[in-house]
Amino acid sequence: MNELGVYDVTDFVASHPGGDKILLAAGGSVEPFWALYAQHKTKEVMEILEELRIGNLDPKEVETPKQMDLSDPFSTDPERHPALIVNQQRPFNAETPPALIMDHFRTPNDLFFVRNHMPVPKIDVKAHRLTIEGLGINRPLKLSVDQLKNNYRPASVTSVVQCAGNRRADMNEYKKTQGLLWKETAISNAEWTGVRLKDLLLLAGVDPNDQRIKHVHLEGADVDDTASITFEKAMSPETIIAYSMNGTDIPPDHGAPLRCVVPGVVGARQVKWLKTIRLSEVESPSHWQQKDYRQVLSCKCEFVAFSPGVDFGDKLDWKSVPAIQEYPIQSAFCIPAPGTKVERGPLDLIRSCTLAPADFKLLITAEGTIDVAGYAWSGGGRGIIRVEVSADDGKTWQSAELEQDPQQDLDHMWAWTFFRTSITIPDGVDKVELVVKATDRAYNTQPETPAGIWNLRGLLNNAWHRVEVKIID
Amino acid sequence: MNELGVYDVTDFVASHPGGDKILLAAGGSVEPFWALYAQHKTKEVMEILEELRIGNLDPKEVETPKQMDLSDPFSTDPERHPALIVNQQRPFNAETPPALIMDHFRTPNDLFFVRNHMPVPKIDVKAHRLTIEGLGINRPLKLSVDQLKNNYRPASVTSVVQCAGNRRADMNEYKKTQGLLWKETAISNAEWTGVRLKDLLLLAGVDPNDQRIKHVHLEGADVDDTASITFEKAMSPETIIAYSMNGTDIPPDHGAPLRCVVPGVVGARQVKWLKTIRLSEVESPSHWQQKDYRQVLSCKCEFVAFSPGVDFGDKLDWKSVPAIQEYPIQSAFCIPAPGTKVERGPLDLIRSCTLAPADFKLLITAEGTIDVAGYAWSGGGRGIIRVEVSADDGKTWQSAELEQDPQQDLDHMWAWTFFRTSITIPDGVDKVELVVKATDRAYNTQPETPAGIWNLRGLLNNAWHRVEVKIID
Repeated sequence: MNELGVYDVTDFVASHPGGDKILLAAGGSVEPFWALYAQHKTKEVMEILEELRIGNLDPKEVETPKQMDLSDPFSTDPERHPALIVNQQRPFNAETPPALIMDHFRTPNDLFFVRNHMPVPKIDVKAHRLTIEGLGINRPLKLSVDQLKNNYRPASVTSVVQCAGNRRADMNEYKKTQGLLWKETAISNAEWTGVRLKDLLLLAGVDPNDQRIKHVHLEGADVDDTASITFEKAMSPETIIAYSMNGTDIPPDHGAPLRCVVPGVVGARQVKWLKTIRLSEVESPSHWQQKDYRQVLSCKCEFVAFSPGVDFGDKLDWKSVPAIQEYPIQSAFCIPAPGTKVERGPLDLIRSCTLAPADFKLLITAEGTIDVAGYAWSGGGRGIIRVEVSADDGKTWQSAELEQDPQQDLDHMWAWTFFRTSITIPDGVDKVELVVKATDRAYNTQPETPAGIWNLRGLLNNAWHRVEVKIID
Repeated sequence: MNELGVYDVTDFVASHPGGDKILLAAGGSVEPFWALYAQHKTKEVMEILEELRIGNLDPKEVETPKQMDLSDPFSTDPERHPALIVNQQRPFNAETPPALIMDHFRTPNDLFFVRNHMPVPKIDVKAHRLTIEGLGINRPLKLSVDQLKNNYRPASVTSVVQCAGNRRADMNEYKKTQGLLWKETAISNAEWTGVRLKDLLLLAGVDPNDQRIKHVHLEGADVDDTASITFEKAMSPETIIAYSMNGTDIPPDHGAPLRCVVPGVVGARQVKWLKTIRLSEVESPSHWQQKDYRQVLSCKCEFVAFSPGVDFGDKLDWKSVPAIQEYPIQSAFCIPAPGTKVERGPLDLIRSCTLAPADFKLLITAEGTIDVAGYAWSGGGRGIIRVEVSADDGKTWQSAELEQDPQQDLDHMWAWTFFRTSITIPDGVDKVELVVKATDRAYNTQPETPAGIWNLRGLLNNAWHRVEVKIID
């Protein structure tokens, strides 16, 4: 549908330069997609589209904007991109479609995965203030968004946000866990611009050598969105108070107007809708709050990954496990998607089919290979030094080509790494499991299965990512 | 043997508080051991020993000190402790006996593992000078050891040194590698005291924000002992120029009189017999040197771990892999040793037999458990948050008790972690494989097998450590 036009693209899919991704928009409006893929906004494309028109919608049939239900706290949530893969509507939780990830090294704001605990808070940007206070602060600050934008030296960082529950669905297959069943794309990468937190703390009169200050609490306008990072990380040059995401104001789902961006650290610490920064001797939330949360909400807000030996019903010894900050190394295929069918034989047209709905096929090249691609990333700025794929469960490995942020080095790599390669599909099999694993700057790599990392909350699954593809001769 | 006395301890072993460790000294002098275990130097112990005397050596039979062969470059190497497990005599390479590791959180200097590439250089301590020079140095320094000891604020750090080839023997079992077949104790932990490298560089007039300086070269008096670390690591407070090891002057095998201690980083960068520090834009050795080394010595000095896909005979693309700096997470059993025999049944005397020669047995307690213990460590200061052992190949896990340096925190843990626990031996089996793995502050853990990390040089094997014990009913 383009405005009121209705188009049948069935025969066009094979000629579509973007392949079957065109089907992501089936049954809805193309506008949200064309907003991301601006190459469609040409006279030539409009002419092709016109040829495919099979009719028009009656304006009366077009959905009218939803009525706002003031008793529904989610009624003021923003509109979202229709391509997002929704795990939960209220609160809104959705991941980026794997088929689209590899199109953008910096994930477009509309496709950036969303992890909300509550309705999106309504914030008056003009009235919003960022407060900086607490231990060791000599000059507390209260800053407007305009002050942050205009009065301080801007700093930018391209950095990944990953949900601690990314790939929980895989871990859940190994043994049942608790939480939203995220697949492999509760992770995205954007360029964030704002002010270095370090600069603001120094301006507030903090002594960088003050040994009493251990933690920096970050509180968002969403009451559930509070966390802390270490004072050392707060003083690192990569940690910023961002007002911009990929060159535009941060959208409501991602923390408008201000978000703390803490590269290399779990998403839960990168507090959205940021309103207060407080220096402290202790971690956030306070002991009282922690105890309260523990009793009432069980594992909800703690973000600790217990040992595989701790199971449902066991007494949870929170003190025994530190809260997650830095991430372990991660990698996953985006192409092909699980369950993809591939077809053998000499072919005129060699291209990737990335969505792999039941009626589409990925084609094997004349050389017997298929294209695979995905992402790798590690916490703490530890850059990816290699990504390897295997079609024989790790007996042999093949290194992939890497795409990395040219402005970042292996010791300060906050952005993700894309990998791409072609892998040979063995003859005479009707299915094959592809495996990927990555190695980071500290030569850490991923465990083969979730056996040693399983935990009841399903956090931090970074076992080798496995995708089964079916082969049709 | 105590001086000239000869003693038969066969019947005493069962009563020896240190268990069968007494046998480490069999056939030789007890003095080197009693130097480490000072509790022996009492009247009571001497009385027990006297009762076991079966004779005396003829002074003529006692080995005379070896003649110095001036044509032998190794003739001036120091005497070593007889308990060290020697992998190679010339150059000397030896690891700490696992049975003794758990006795000392800080490994005694005599038992610290030794990795030499050449004869130990003969250095005149009075004449020795440390030179600091290179890019961005405004005031080059040339310092004597006494100046370092007396004129600068001392700094101490308890820090692990691990050979990049530690546990190569395990990796070699999986698939053949190249290099000395180190078992699991090419790793030790000591308290080092010296001067912060940062303090010396600032004194030499280095601007800490000089963007040109990327690497700091470290050159030892041993021509083969040269390496570099990043400027950032050189400026970190934990990096020191050490003159003292566990409270005494550094012994010759460990770098007398000066060694660079770079916590969290591979042993090869912690240059011994340090004489020159040079700031640079590029890594050491120079491109010319690198190329030369590559052609002549193949993999000898590069310390890069290629992908499992790179095999012997393949063209080595050095540029594709960065040199090792930080370590991945590691853990290993020291007790029990591989091949240990354990005996079931109710027992009067429950104690660990840690050496497990063929004629000794480890005893299963009345509860059906045996004691296990070992070490865990991770690079980059990432502290160990848990160590788990399994007797069923990772299907179930049991957390161990941890012993850590109380002065270090999880984000700056340069010392190792000891673990200890008791694990149940299943009924009705005649052998059992025990498995250990650790998790660090970034929730990195160890791969299950060497399948994904094997490399032709056998570097950085950190797969789950496995020890098989035999059970005698």
